[in-house]
Amino acid sequence: MLQTALTIGIDIGGTNTNWGIVSQDGHILHTGHLPTQTAKDPVDFFKALYHQIEPAISLYNHNEIKGVGIGAPQTNFHTGNMMNAANMPWKGMVPIREIATSIFQLTVQVTNDANAAAIGEMTYGAAKGMRDFIVVTLGTGLGSGIVSNGQLLYGHHGMAGELGHTIVSREGRTCGCGRKGCLETYVSATGIVRTAKELLEKEKAIETTNSIKTGVLQTTYKKNENIQAHQIHEAALSGDPLAIQIFNETGTILGRALANVVAITEPEAIILFGGLAKAGALLFEPTLNAMEANLLDCYRNQVKLIPSGLQEREASILGCAALGWLS
Amino acid sequence: MLQTALTIGIDIGGTNTNWGIVSQDGHILHTGHLPTQTAKDPVDFFKALYHQIEPAISLYNHNEIKGVGIGAPQTNFHTGNMMNAANMPWKGMVPIREIATSIFQLTVQVTNDANAAAIGEMTYGAAKGMRDFIVVTLGTGLGSGIVSNGQLLYGHHGMAGELGHTIVSREGRTCGCGRKGCLETYVSATGIVRTAKELLEKEKAIETTNSIKTGVLQTTYKKNENIQAHQIHEAALSGDPLAIQIFNETGTILGRALANVVAITEPEAIILFGGLAKAGALLFEPTLNAMEANLLDCYRNQVKLIPSGLQEREASILGCAALGWLS
Repeated sequence: MLQTALTIGIDIGGTNTNWGIVSQDGHILHTGHLPTQTAKDPVDFFKALYHQIEPAISLYNHNEIKGVGIGAPQTNFHTGNMMNAANMPWKGMVPIREIATSIFQLTVQVTNDANAAAIGEMTYGAAKGMRDFIVVTLGTGLGSGIVSNGQLLYGHHGMAGELGHTIVSREGRTCGCGRKGCLETYVSATGIVRTAKELLEKEKAIETTNSIKTGVLQTTYKKNENIQAHQIHEAALSGDPLAIQIFNETGTILGRALANVVAITEPEAIILFGGLAKAGALLFEPTLNAMEANLLDCYRNQVKLIPSGLQEREASILGCAALGWLS
Repeated sequence: MLQTALTIGIDIGGTNTNWGIVSQDGHILHTGHLPTQTAKDPVDFFKALYHQIEPAISLYNHNEIKGVGIGAPQTNFHTGNMMNAANMPWKGMVPIREIATSIFQLTVQVTNDANAAAIGEMTYGAAKGMRDFIVVTLGTGLGSGIVSNGQLLYGHHGMAGELGHTIVSREGRTCGCGRKGCLETYVSATGIVRTAKELLEKEKAIETTNSIKTGVLQTTYKKNENIQAHQIHEAALSGDPLAIQIFNETGTILGRALANVVAITEPEAIILFGGLAKAGALLFEPTLNAMEANLLDCYRNQVKLIPSGLQEREASILGCAALGWLS
């Protein structure tokens, strides 16, 4: 058996939990997954998870595994706790770090999923070698992980990086957080669906018979189906003008918000990560155009807007594993 | 002669340059000032400045003076250069660090004035012991220095912290930077004067004879005098309703912008510094109210809004002197 140095990365999502045992150079040597809903009690969940990982762990000496890194929604690096996470089976305050430490008998670090993605990009992905960058995760909501001077910006209580909850429109869309006009109500999988529905309703109200009305999205909407983000993406790829307009509006709102963030943190690059970012040029072009158009002179043509350098599932495991090295 | 450890702090403003020789515990042992317009050539200016400081320097052994810190508008920590600074006698790119190093024969660090203020507050002022805070300087414009994880957030090219140039109102007021709706067009000494003029013009247009019209500001404005920020402050102190309204509107815009910044960097405190901050509760109350009203739940009642812990002139010298320790 070779003497080696490894960490365990665990990415806990609302639906699935992915884990990997990862070498220092970023190779996932063992991996697996478990439905997060496996257990209603978080202690039972971590016991089941350990049971699944244990055969792989037993292939190594205990001192070869240097630590565990866990990424999970609404989870705080400083306190080690998950707090009121939406879409999770565990409610209220869950002491993730304490539970995992006692079950794995290893040092455990925890953080939220966007921060884990930022660590993953910095260690193994598109931000390798960068000291100042931002990862924007575009999933059901909009998360962000900010790295400055080569360090994750955690903030005073470990709650920095809530770019999705900056207000971009006074009296704008109602947000799940109880306020109005948050960026994530426009720029996220759910936000883009809201934009689609708004535009479709507006068209209906106009009651014209112009050619746009025969588009893919209109047909879907007429059938009273729920529109999903991936359908808007597919419609745009097939040239549907309304779907393209939806991406343009979404990118414009994101680009304007990013221009303001650049004035505050001046990153070398902004990395778009997650489902919506897979739309590629459909989203990147209007975002970059709006960002550049709204930047202060001295920042123009300086900030790269780039896609994630990692496969999504891999990225989250690698990010968590990299966090494990902080142990 | 006692063996000691000192730095020289030099704060270069558009009008005056203040300097001090400062002990490690923050005592200004010698101080002086020189009109910045003394010389059209920056090399001549630094020679004149050195000539003024030299008698104080000569009281110490050369190795007791550990370095020089310089704060100046539009000056970059990374490059050492001042770049296209408005209101300065020197145009274009001025290699401040290089010039000062050769004349003082000491290690020199430079940064912009807002960053110097942040270092001053952290080392000797209201942010002593804090690792995450923001200093907002409210002068002719609006500057900001952001500290995260105990370090100044310089950004990739040393240009972070331009909070004054985040856009807070689409198609808002024209800014000196060529764009529209920048925060500093509303929240600064010049911004508050613009608000006053707008409100006074609006009143004129209404052409009523209500009691507000007899206020202090109206009288000043009728005499066709240029209104200045300190007059609005004095009018508000004397109970003038229009002047109070001006502070309320200014604070509301600042508070909303700060709520967005909190979501990004989650500071322990935000320190208001400079002329406009001297208005005290007139500005702090509406700012705090608007910030709290626009904060995400998890940040509410967590972020302190406090005045500078230093006298303005002292603060800038101390901030620059503290920068000198990085030498």
